[in-house]
Amino acid sequence: MKVRMGGARDRRVRSGVRTTRPQGCAERVKRVGAVRAGCHDPGRVRDNEGPSVNNASPIDIAWMRRAVELAALGIGTTHPNPVVGCVITGRDGHPVGEGFHAYPGGPHAEVEALRMAGDRARGGTAYITLEPCNHTGRTGPCADALIEAGVARVVYAVPDPNRQASGGADKLADKNIQVEQGVLQDEAEAVNHVWLHSIRTGRPFVTWKFATTLDGRSAAPDRSSRWITGPLARADVHRKRAECDAIAVGTQTVLDDDPELTVRDAENQPVGRQPLRVVVGDRDIPATARVRNDRAETLLLPTHDPAEVLRQLDDHQIRHLWLEGGPTLAAAFLRAGLVDQIVAYVAPAVLGSGFSAIGDLGAESIADLRRFTLADVTRLGDDVRLTLTPLTTPSPQRTV
Amino acid sequence: MKVRMGGARDRRVRSGVRTTRPQGCAERVKRVGAVRAGCHDPGRVRDNEGPSVNNASPIDIAWMRRAVELAALGIGTTHPNPVVGCVITGRDGHPVGEGFHAYPGGPHAEVEALRMAGDRARGGTAYITLEPCNHTGRTGPCADALIEAGVARVVYAVPDPNRQASGGADKLADKNIQVEQGVLQDEAEAVNHVWLHSIRTGRPFVTWKFATTLDGRSAAPDRSSRWITGPLARADVHRKRAECDAIAVGTQTVLDDDPELTVRDAENQPVGRQPLRVVVGDRDIPATARVRNDRAETLLLPTHDPAEVLRQLDDHQIRHLWLEGGPTLAAAFLRAGLVDQIVAYVAPAVLGSGFSAIGDLGAESIADLRRFTLADVTRLGDDVRLTLTPLTTPSPQRTV
Repeated sequence: MKVRMGGARDRRVRSGVRTTRPQGCAERVKRVGAVRAGCHDPGRVRDNEGPSVNNASPIDIAWMRRAVELAALGIGTTHPNPVVGCVITGRDGHPVGEGFHAYPGGPHAEVEALRMAGDRARGGTAYITLEPCNHTGRTGPCADALIEAGVARVVYAVPDPNRQASGGADKLADKNIQVEQGVLQDEAEAVNHVWLHSIRTGRPFVTWKFATTLDGRSAAPDRSSRWITGPLARADVHRKRAECDAIAVGTQTVLDDDPELTVRDAENQPVGRQPLRVVVGDRDIPATARVRNDRAETLLLPTHDPAEVLRQLDDHQIRHLWLEGGPTLAAAFLRAGLVDQIVAYVAPAVLGSGFSAIGDLGAESIADLRRFTLADVTRLGDDVRLTLTPLTTPSPQRTV
Repeated sequence: MKVRMGGARDRRVRSGVRTTRPQGCAERVKRVGAVRAGCHDPGRVRDNEGPSVNNASPIDIAWMRRAVELAALGIGTTHPNPVVGCVITGRDGHPVGEGFHAYPGGPHAEVEALRMAGDRARGGTAYITLEPCNHTGRTGPCADALIEAGVARVVYAVPDPNRQASGGADKLADKNIQVEQGVLQDEAEAVNHVWLHSIRTGRPFVTWKFATTLDGRSAAPDRSSRWITGPLARADVHRKRAECDAIAVGTQTVLDDDPELTVRDAENQPVGRQPLRVVVGDRDIPATARVRNDRAETLLLPTHDPAEVLRQLDDHQIRHLWLEGGPTLAAAFLRAGLVDQIVAYVAPAVLGSGFSAIGDLGAESIADLRRFTLADVTRLGDDVRLTLTPLTTPSPQRTV
């Protein structure tokens, strides 16, 4: 039985009041079953509203917050899996175990935490950022592990939208374990927003990144563009590339800039797991192009259709695509409504001529302006990083 | 005798150690006479280094900081005069009077403070942000007023660079008043930087303001540009206009946008003293243009030479010119090295086509990038305000 069916099953889990506020689906702890519909809004999890009002106990909130912290430790290494954090408290309420999912094929957060807790988990509570899986993949179902460990109560923040893995809450409730959902759901959604987006929409989360002068120039008239921004901004780009699992550019950018598209350190050496390099377009790429070197894998997609690009990347289980340009590719994604986040590095400099980061969007008057929400402003040395998210998110398949 | 001559006069004032640090001319209290040379750097006063190390007493620093606060109350209303603040402490060290210069023709800060102090000023100390004037203009010399009031000690932050008014410190020292200079000089320079710049360079301080999308568009292809930024950013523009004494645009902007160029409130009604409206260029302005209405004075300057514009505005005792565009005028000022500050309002939006805020600067490659120092980043609703200052300020007549 699926928790989304609600009904009789709900009597076994702690009940909550369903609020009807238009924005926000996590203000209160909810009955399992009342949650699935209407909460699949990947845009809002990245807003800056702060913690939502919550009638969960301060203790539950505190342990769930720690679980969210633990989940965040997996950002950038769990692809194609979600990030998950787990805290186990014993019968007396003291913490006895914690864990997070670190890499695909590695133990799930619950398993890590239960291993640390051992027998002390019996009669205790498990706080988990995501509904425990009911799926035997490379590891066994976490729901079973929690049942076997004898926990009396499971508090999770976000329902698992993955049909293959969901059903864990039902299974736990069937075993008379007290199950609650919704504690710190906003924060748990935020830490996992890329994966949730990917599962809910069936395509990678797309971040369009560009560097620009204050007058909107991303390259000079001779197409030179190194360097517009300073070392702190460039290091930030590498940190953010490392959190993605694919980096895409158009063929023009390969021909103009010959980028390597790898994650590199301050000494310009490749570090860690490298995202998939994706080159979009049908022009020939020279055999000597850096994107063809052996420092990372490369996928050539001879198409101009962003939806087709994303479809193919979804087949490769890409959750987060980092779109680096150039203007033609960026404009194609924007026009298709397939940009979920913009990260712009703005240098305190003017050029007065040259090329914009974005190609023609068909705008004729100021009414055609494409507006976004300013999600974050961060100073990086002498540069500024602006993070933009779509203005409204009426449906999982949004238009920008 | 001028204090800049130093020598025997110095024995009568408290001596200090002249530091040789390349940046900073106010780290220590200085003898009167050792200050004038090398400190006339209007750029650095707007950096964010925080208070300089200072061997002045905490008490002197505290009262001078209050005097700086008082001076700031005059920003935007004292043109063409400087902003000045003054605190008087009595013989026992307690404050007995304070004042600031509020408007041209109004009492000077020292006179205000002495009026409040009355007889209690005798034997006390006057803290003044700017060297007391020795000039009879619309009011008598402040140096004389301090002497008559019987203050025993005068501490001032910034020497008066105005030849007509300076000499106040000398006159005080001649009357055996203990005179010290340099306490919180950085902060006192900062609060008065526009006026100091104007006097030191003989031309107005120029702020170039523009609003832009993230991709550097200040107008759409059909030249429409209202509104790129939101209400908080637009209100900020009016606050900043109010701090200037002239607002300039090119004739093209008048023909395209028909701006009124007044300081207006949230209801779009003109408020307070209006800056001089300046229209640069030789195209005809229609009689119906808003800049020709009676809500403010307007100066038409049929020239394309920024230096000539500034020369004529200096004749009008304009201290702070707010340059609103368009691209041709902005480019001319930038190319001439006559932009002292850039205030850019960046909207979280992209247009993909249209007009830049700045015309051609002759850049061919990225090496031609004109870089600035990022002095401030402020979020205004969904927009971001970036304030830029020149990278280096080797001389009062800087190039950008």
